[in-house]
Amino acid sequence: MKRLLVLNGPNLNLLGKREPGIYGHGTLDDAVKLARETATEKGIEVDEYQSNHEGELIDAIQQAEGKYEGIIFNPAAYTHTSIGLRDAISAIEVPVVEVHISNVHQRESFRHHSMLAPVCQGQIVGFGLLGYRLAALALIESLEGRR
Amino acid sequence: MKRLLVLNGPNLNLLGKREPGIYGHGTLDDAVKLARETATEKGIEVDEYQSNHEGELIDAIQQAEGKYEGIIFNPAAYTHTSIGLRDAISAIEVPVVEVHISNVHQRESFRHHSMLAPVCQGQIVGFGLLGYRLAALALIESLEGRR
Amino acid sequence: MKRLLVLNGPNLNLLGKREPGIYGHGTLDDAVKLARETATEKGIEVDEYQSNHEGELIDAIQQAEGKYEGIIFNPAAYTHTSIGLRDAISAIEVPVVEVHISNVHQRESFRHHSMLAPVCQGQIVGFGLLGYRLAALALIESLEGRR
Amino acid sequence: MKRLLVLNGPNLNLLGKREPGIYGHGTLDDAVKLARETATEKGIEVDEYQSNHEGELIDAIQQAEGKYEGIIFNPAAYTHTSIGLRDAISAIEVPVVEVHISNVHQRESFRHHSMLAPVCQGQIVGFGLLGYRLAALALIESLEGRR
Amino acid sequence: MKRLLVLNGPNLNLLGKREPGIYGHGTLDDAVKLARETATEKGIEVDEYQSNHEGELIDAIQQAEGKYEGIIFNPAAYTHTSIGLRDAISAIEVPVVEVHISNVHQRESFRHHSMLAPVCQGQIVGFGLLGYRLAALALIESLEGRR
Amino acid sequence: MKRLLVLNGPNLNLLGKREPGIYGHGTLDDAVKLARETATEKGIEVDEYQSNHEGELIDAIQQAEGKYEGIIFNPAAYTHTSIGLRDAISAIEVPVVEVHISNVHQRESFRHHSMLAPVCQGQIVGFGLLGYRLAALALIESLEGRR
Amino acid sequence: MKRLLVLNGPNLNLLGKREPGIYGHGTLDDAVKLARETATEKGIEVDEYQSNHEGELIDAIQQAEGKYEGIIFNPAAYTHTSIGLRDAISAIEVPVVEVHISNVHQRESFRHHSMLAPVCQGQIVGFGLLGYRLAALALIESLEGRR
Amino acid sequence: MKRLLVLNGPNLNLLGKREPGIYGHGTLDDAVKLARETATEKGIEVDEYQSNHEGELIDAIQQAEGKYEGIIFNPAAYTHTSIGLRDAISAIEVPVVEVHISNVHQRESFRHHSMLAPVCQGQIVGFGLLGYRLAALALIESLEGRR
Amino acid sequence: MKRLLVLNGPNLNLLGKREPGIYGHGTLDDAVKLARETATEKGIEVDEYQSNHEGELIDAIQQAEGKYEGIIFNPAAYTHTSIGLRDAISAIEVPVVEVHISNVHQRESFRHHSMLAPVCQGQIVGFGLLGYRLAALALIESLEGRR
Amino acid sequence: MKRLLVLNGPNLNLLGKREPGIYGHGTLDDAVKLARETATEKGIEVDEYQSNHEGELIDAIQQAEGKYEGIIFNPAAYTHTSIGLRDAISAIEVPVVEVHISNVHQRESFRHHSMLAPVCQGQIVGFGLLGYRLAALALIESLEGRR
Amino acid sequence: MKRLLVLNGPNLNLLGKREPGIYGHGTLDDAVKLARETATEKGIEVDEYQSNHEGELIDAIQQAEGKYEGIIFNPAAYTHTSIGLRDAISAIEVPVVEVHISNVHQRESFRHHSMLAPVCQGQIVGFGLLGYRLAALALIESLEGRR
Amino acid sequence: MKRLLVLNGPNLNLLGKREPGIYGHGTLDDAVKLARETATEKGIEVDEYQSNHEGELIDAIQQAEGKYEGIIFNPAAYTHTSIGLRDAISAIEVPVVEVHISNVHQRESFRHHSMLAPVCQGQIVGFGLLGYRLAALALIESLEGRR
Repeated sequence: MKRLLVLNGPNLNLLGKREPGIYGHGTLDDAVKLARETATEKGIEVDEYQSNHEGELIDAIQQAEGKYEGIIFNPAAYTHTSIGLRDAISAIEVPVVEVHISNVHQRESFRHHSMLAPVCQGQIVGFGLLGYRLAALALIESLEGRR
Repeated sequence: MKRLLVLNGPNLNLLGKREPGIYGHGTLDDAVKLARETATEKGIEVDEYQSNHEGELIDAIQQAEGKYEGIIFNPAAYTHTSIGLRDAISAIEVPVVEVHISNVHQRESFRHHSMLAPVCQGQIVGFGLLGYRLAALALIESLEGRR
Repeated sequence: MKRLLVLNGPNLNLLGKREPGIYGHGTLDDAVKLARETATEKGIEVDEYQSNHEGELIDAIQQAEGKYEGIIFNPAAYTHTSIGLRDAISAIEVPVVEVHISNVHQRESFRHHSMLAPVCQGQIVGFGLLGYRLAALALIESLEGRR
Repeated sequence: MKRLLVLNGPNLNLLGKREPGIYGHGTLDDAVKLARETATEKGIEVDEYQSNHEGELIDAIQQAEGKYEGIIFNPAAYTHTSIGLRDAISAIEVPVVEVHISNVHQRESFRHHSMLAPVCQGQIVGFGLLGYRLAALALIESLEGRR
Repeated sequence: MKRLLVLNGPNLNLLGKREPGIYGHGTLDDAVKLARETATEKGIEVDEYQSNHEGELIDAIQQAEGKYEGIIFNPAAYTHTSIGLRDAISAIEVPVVEVHISNVHQRESFRHHSMLAPVCQGQIVGFGLLGYRLAALALIESLEGRR
Repeated sequence: MKRLLVLNGPNLNLLGKREPGIYGHGTLDDAVKLARETATEKGIEVDEYQSNHEGELIDAIQQAEGKYEGIIFNPAAYTHTSIGLRDAISAIEVPVVEVHISNVHQRESFRHHSMLAPVCQGQIVGFGLLGYRLAALALIESLEGRR
Repeated sequence: MKRLLVLNGPNLNLLGKREPGIYGHGTLDDAVKLARETATEKGIEVDEYQSNHEGELIDAIQQAEGKYEGIIFNPAAYTHTSIGLRDAISAIEVPVVEVHISNVHQRESFRHHSMLAPVCQGQIVGFGLLGYRLAALALIESLEGRR
Repeated sequence: MKRLLVLNGPNLNLLGKREPGIYGHGTLDDAVKLARETATEKGIEVDEYQSNHEGELIDAIQQAEGKYEGIIFNPAAYTHTSIGLRDAISAIEVPVVEVHISNVHQRESFRHHSMLAPVCQGQIVGFGLLGYRLAALALIESLEGRR
Repeated sequence: MKRLLVLNGPNLNLLGKREPGIYGHGTLDDAVKLARETATEKGIEVDEYQSNHEGELIDAIQQAEGKYEGIIFNPAAYTHTSIGLRDAISAIEVPVVEVHISNVHQRESFRHHSMLAPVCQGQIVGFGLLGYRLAALALIESLEGRR
Repeated sequence: MKRLLVLNGPNLNLLGKREPGIYGHGTLDDAVKLARETATEKGIEVDEYQSNHEGELIDAIQQAEGKYEGIIFNPAAYTHTSIGLRDAISAIEVPVVEVHISNVHQRESFRHHSMLAPVCQGQIVGFGLLGYRLAALALIESLEGRR
Repeated sequence: MKRLLVLNGPNLNLLGKREPGIYGHGTLDDAVKLARETATEKGIEVDEYQSNHEGELIDAIQQAEGKYEGIIFNPAAYTHTSIGLRDAISAIEVPVVEVHISNVHQRESFRHHSMLAPVCQGQIVGFGLLGYRLAALALIESLEGRR
Repeated sequence: MKRLLVLNGPNLNLLGKREPGIYGHGTLDDAVKLARETATEKGIEVDEYQSNHEGELIDAIQQAEGKYEGIIFNPAAYTHTSIGLRDAISAIEVPVVEVHISNVHQRESFRHHSMLAPVCQGQIVGFGLLGYRLAALALIESLEGRR
């Protein structure tokens, strides 16, 4: 059976509690549910992993190789600085879709640049939790060769 | 009946012919069809307009007010320089979703920055023509209050 | 009979509707009326032209040569990027006064720099629609040799 | 009786003598007279103060509170560097209009940026001494609620 | 019969009248004549098109495909900012030679960089109207395989 | 008995599998073997540690104090951003040699700058796995006072 | 009973041993003791946690919510780069005071900018271990509403 | 008897009146009282001086030599630009502590950099008037050799 | 008899052997022949000089005064850095045309800027060896007063 | 009788006491004596003025017009920031020679740029007090037409 | 018989005399001897050439083609600026190893960037004269196919 | 007998002929004569050397060691780029005074920065040929211990 990994970076465990003016009131579970609904219709399973540790996220990306058909990745704060995550994504064959809940281009200038976007399949920014569903759809359509 | 506008900027009329190594072999009609399929399922109509003229694109955005529920906008070359398009988007109430076919973050550095992203609802980058379907879905789910 | 041209750039046709928090509730007609009142007292006529198209604005500036004694120009979004408008202003003898309704120096940093100011007679920034009256006065006093 | 203050920064006491190729042959008295003429018609008095000392100009702005309805301020060299003058303008309720005699945008690049413009009501640049009359008019029309 | 297009950007219609200290007294017709003389000797026809509108220039480049063997392009003000023209040139097979009448490297710094040069066959700068003849020669020698 | 530590940063555990076009087909074990061969000839032992976690690498450097005579360190992605690793190297007496397998100066510009080089004894770049042998040799010759 | 957390970042476990020319001979225990003395007088308890791992520091900040009245935080090397720590501080209600032992403004330029200062209550720089006492005092006076 | 000087820069005479949203409602007298209370407990006297004039502040720093044991200095607007104040602080032996009432790192970017911090003993930022008490404490503990 | 000098900078002696993917297979003799053919038709002689030494190229430019009617100069690597060559060109009356074989604007960014272009008559870029013929033609037409 | 003015900026009154490692042990009187000795031989008188106040230095420069044949000016800290002093020097006819005692190019980077040098006759840097004698000599030789 | 060239740039002839605090007391002969010892063991000869002239170094690199199996190159001051040396290295097939005696990353910022590193096989920095031995070893192992 | 060297860089052999608007009509011999007159009075001899070659100037500086008491150096174009000359000056004990005939701060921005000034004793700018006399005087007074 095919599987997708929803991978979430630092402070996303606080989703719904953290700065709701920016991130809304939905929780990380709600986000994963949106991706899972879309995947289940296609008979695809969805796992989830969140960590505040850059190293653990690198580990998770490395271990996705041969286990997942795609990764929906919200790298949060590490988006803008992590060359280690970039190298990990480059090192595996699994396609990665970068998701951001808020419209990062409306926020501080250090959030405008992504170190990861150039090595991801694509990037979805600013649609709130819905971004997770869009990312799932993007990966599944690719897997089905419809892209 | 509800309507969406698919708005395309300069050189996108050549899609399928222009630099297929970057943009693929699908045509602009193919892209619009993807958005229309998704919209039709929800009983929403889709119009399309393409222009190589910045002024005509500004006109089109202004005229969308009161006529469309949302705009799927691929501003192409004007993405990176047009303050006029930015001001037009700010001036209307209609939500705009920015779409790019190629992964602009893998290309020349002048393509990395968008003047429009901060005033759009969200941004979808790098999924080829599929981006138009994702954008349609994003607008429709918003209209249905599910975001 | 002497004539002035009030020339307005992109999105100024929406004045009064567009972002009233920034631009106020007066319309473009109100702005032109302020300039015209001041001019009429001196027996000078005022024409008006607005376009969202950079090319049409360049055309208008070129055609002002030999027809107008001065141009009151609010270049809006093209202020910050248009070398074509700058070259057109340099190419004619007619004096041009640059007007901005909002205080552009309180807004995004890309609005702080004007490509046109160095080739205009002067610049009036931040007085709302009143700026059009001040610009008319500045041109008329110059024409009367009182500057 | 209502009063305006015409405040002038460093080296403006030399106006008419200093670099006439840039600043013309009019003196500071001529400039003040232009503002006063316009004000007198409206029954408003005009005082004048010039100093080469940044600290004295800060003092003057602080003391304008409760005494003047508006300030016409040509900060000259301090325009580009003085955070102290910016803070003083922010600290008072009196509206300040920034005036420059020459078109600063045609001169050295360090003259293109104003530290003060963002906290002033507006800015008038490049009209020679006439700028003082325009500034007086701008303040008076505001006071009369016509802006 | 083989054909070349001489394409001219904004304000070049004023050539001979506009800033003769920079551009000289020759007109655009004179420039085209120089290119045509050179081409006629080789049995090649030359068409000419000028526009102040970026969009019309993009249209013209797109339409040159299959119709012209080469384009002599003086993009004038759009040289320095137009990604749309760059993308149009990339999208067609027809070789384009960039020409500038004045030595842009002796002028304002914003004229030193060309957005188009990297996608043109070559660039000819600073030889006055003669540049059009040199560009015609360059294109013809290429067509004849002598480059 | 004297000991050296070969310390490797993020994603180097994938060596031989990860982007072989850049890093070659040798594994991390092969790299360590090259250093060990050189050390063994001199009666020096070599330990190895790899981690994807910046914090674990800092821990490892701190714990090297009093235990190792030198560190051969390939900090990989953390080379360019880690002030924490820099401070750890500064905090210990053990000499550290920085090694990079690929020629980082031929790659993305963010790989050209090392935060660590100024606090290392030296830097060896671009010799593939051989760099580990050269680093071992450099440390051993220093220990033997021959530098 | 009220509690404060003294949180210390990478390499601070080496305090007293590491670069005493910069950081002095006092240990981390000495620093905590200074904060605790001040707190104890007010009947407030002080806990301490140090880690070299960015992820563990983020975890610690998240877990401080609802448990501590304030955090005295010396983020050391992560001060200058960690968006993850910044987001964690923004996500909690607990006030954070940033402390640096050395005068970072006398050191390398990359130490002059703090990613965290804008989301902390305040910043204390350059007073050696005494900074911890000052930070404790600042938090306690705030808690007592005396600020 | 030992003495400290509380030295305040431009516009701080307006404290309590000026922009209370940023600076609060406490006056400069309140700030000095906080420092004096702390000093009096230790038998130390506190003098105060405020000026809007950079030159007078330089004079005051020069004259503090041999008269004061320490200076609590809020340089306000001159913090960011004054090399003269920096040189004066370098020229005397008296330790200087830099205090800012607001968290300057949350404000305009030109307020993020201090010309003076590198020559001061330390810097206290963002604690409101309480910063003056903390600064007094810092100086006194240093004088008592407890730092 | 009139004479032109074809002057070539560093590494151009290797033309045809060096990086033929960039520079093609033609040799420096081929390039000079193209210029000479064009000149000979007009009764003008052509000399050639190549050096890898900046100083020798400066010497050659100085000695061209009074001996040559024009210089066709390919400064190669010195284009981007040599103020000495720039000063030499400024010091003589002989017109200099700058030629580059490859399209330097498609290569590394340090090749995009020419220190020499502002003091040359014009610049010809990207036409391969044909550029030498175009340069000869440009100089000859100028000499004949046809420019 | 002819006169020169030796004008000294902020903190130079402390010369001999202030940072002798940088400025040496000579006093300002010693510096003036060196200039005066040179001038006296030529029958020229020398006056001296020092101030820590930018405004007073501007006043002094303005008042030198018609009274002095030349100014030897050490602007100290104001060298790098004062547009007001620059404008004052431009406003008068009296030639000004800029002197720096220390080699400012060996110090902090903000001391490398002079706002005043472009409007001075020349600049003498790094010769200690001897610079004042050299400046006097330079002015006198100019006055005698020997330059 | 195989040969290596040890090529040394400007001022390295002074090695041992020049700034021994930075470069140590070893001479250039000592450096060459270290490389030669290593080479001789493998039956490889070593030649040496030093010049202060950029042009002579370019000549030497060009002439190494077909004569040497590898070049050990310490380009000294030309490392940071010479495009001519870069082009020469690109033009030949012989592998070049860049060596620096001092740790350039601990010195002035203009020494941190190498124009040559991207076209060299690798770079060895900061090991004193030992770097020459390491470079010889690197080249020989490559020649023996062991890299 | 003591000796000074007057060393002149590229294009200074053309002095008097080259751009007299910038450099005046005096020749290099005139400049040397001014230095020699001053030296001869003190019984010091003056030699002169000029070269357009950076390498020859480096050679000349190296050879000055032990032969000259001081060097008056006008590095001309190499001032702004030559690290090799900087290293040569650092390598010798002989003091070097940098002289520029024109006021380089009034010219192109690339002439404002000197690579050499930080390693020279001092710098004399803008006094025309008189600068050579001032430089001689500066060196002689130093030699006599009067500085």
